[in-house]
Amino acid sequence: MRQSGAISELIDALRCLPGVGPKTAQRMTLHLLQRDRDAARRLSEALHDALTKVGLCGQCRTLTESTLCEHCANPARDRSQLCIVESPAEVYAISRATAYKGLFFVLNGRLSPLDGIGPAELGLGALEKRLKEDGVAELILATNTTVEGEATAHYLSDMARRHGIRTTRIAHGIPFGGELEYVDGTTLSHAFDGRKDF
Amino acid sequence: MRQSGAISELIDALRCLPGVGPKTAQRMTLHLLQRDRDAARRLSEALHDALTKVGLCGQCRTLTESTLCEHCANPARDRSQLCIVESPAEVYAISRATAYKGLFFVLNGRLSPLDGIGPAELGLGALEKRLKEDGVAELILATNTTVEGEATAHYLSDMARRHGIRTTRIAHGIPFGGELEYVDGTTLSHAFDGRKDF
Repeated sequence: MRQSGAISELIDALRCLPGVGPKTAQRMTLHLLQRDRDAARRLSEALHDALTKVGLCGQCRTLTESTLCEHCANPARDRSQLCIVESPAEVYAISRATAYKGLFFVLNGRLSPLDGIGPAELGLGALEKRLKEDGVAELILATNTTVEGEATAHYLSDMARRHGIRTTRIAHGIPFGGELEYVDGTTLSHAFDGRKDF
Repeated sequence: MRQSGAISELIDALRCLPGVGPKTAQRMTLHLLQRDRDAARRLSEALHDALTKVGLCGQCRTLTESTLCEHCANPARDRSQLCIVESPAEVYAISRATAYKGLFFVLNGRLSPLDGIGPAELGLGALEKRLKEDGVAELILATNTTVEGEATAHYLSDMARRHGIRTTRIAHGIPFGGELEYVDGTTLSHAFDGRKDF
C-alpha cells in the first residue's frame, strides 16, 4: 500500500528536522494523525507564527521577535564586554550557565570561504563599526574549536587588535568531571599547554 | 536570556513529536528558524493539509484521503481474507514485506478497559457485521504480543468462532538471523512450543 499524497508529503516535510530519517518521520506522522491531531494543529500554527514573528536582532543578530533582543534592549547589561558566538543556542547556553552580564554578537555561522561564507555573511561589517564606536573594552571569543571556528576567532582577534581592544578566548581543557584517561589527545594537549599556577 | 514567545511556543509544540525532548526540540527550532525557513513553511503547510484531508477509511479504518482506502477500493484484492492489525504502520509493513493479497482491518488501538478502550472504540461492531455478511473465510490476527494485544486477539478469535470463521495468528519465534543465545526467554519458549516438522 502506498501512502496517500498528504500523508507522504507530511512524512517528507518532517524529514527536514535534524536527526529525523524516513522511519522516524513515518512514526511521527502516524502519531500525529492517529493520536494527537490537536498537537499537530498547534505545531502547524506555532511554525507559521514563528516564521512570521521571529527575525534577527538588529544589533546582535540573535533570534528575536522585536527589533532589539532582550539583551541588547536591557540598559543594565555591561556594554564594555562583547561575547562572540556562532549561534543563538550558544547565547542561551552561556546565559543559563554563567553569570555573564555583557552583550553578545551572534555570527549565525563561521567563516568558510569554500561554502561562500565570508565576513559579509556573518555581519562582520556591523561588528567592526561597533568595535570602533561603541566603547567595547573586551571581545570574548566563544566560537567552536573546529577549523572554521578557529579561523573565525583569529580573524576577529585581528580585527579587535586594529581597534586596540583586548581579546580573550574561553578556556578549553578537560571537561569538569572528565577523566584524563578518556579525553582525546588534542584536548589533553591543549589542557596541558594551558596549565596555570595552582 | 529567556526565549521569546513564538520561539518557546514552537519548542513546546515540537515536543509533541514522539522521541523529542526539550533539547532536541530547541535544536530543531533553531535549525528551522536559522537555516531552513522554507522547510519550516513546507512543514506547517503539510501538517495543515494532512489534518484537513486525511481521515479513516470507512471500511478498514486505516488512514486515507478518500472514503475508501486503496486496498478496500481495489476489486482485485481477495475479500475472503481479513488481517487485523493495531495501526496503519502495520498495514504498510505487511504490504511491503509480504505478498498478502487480502484486506486489512485497523483497530487503531487495542482492548484496554483501564484506559477506557473497549470494543466500540476499536470499531468491533462494524467488524462483527462484516464477519456476518461479507464472506470472510479467514481472520488473520496480527496484533502485537503485549498483554492487551493478546487479550484483543482472544476477543477477536471468540467473535470469529461465533460466525464459524477460521482464525489464524501470525507466527512468533526467533527472528530471522537472530541467535538463540541472545533471544529473550519468552520468545525462545514460544518458538520451542511452536516447533514444526522439518
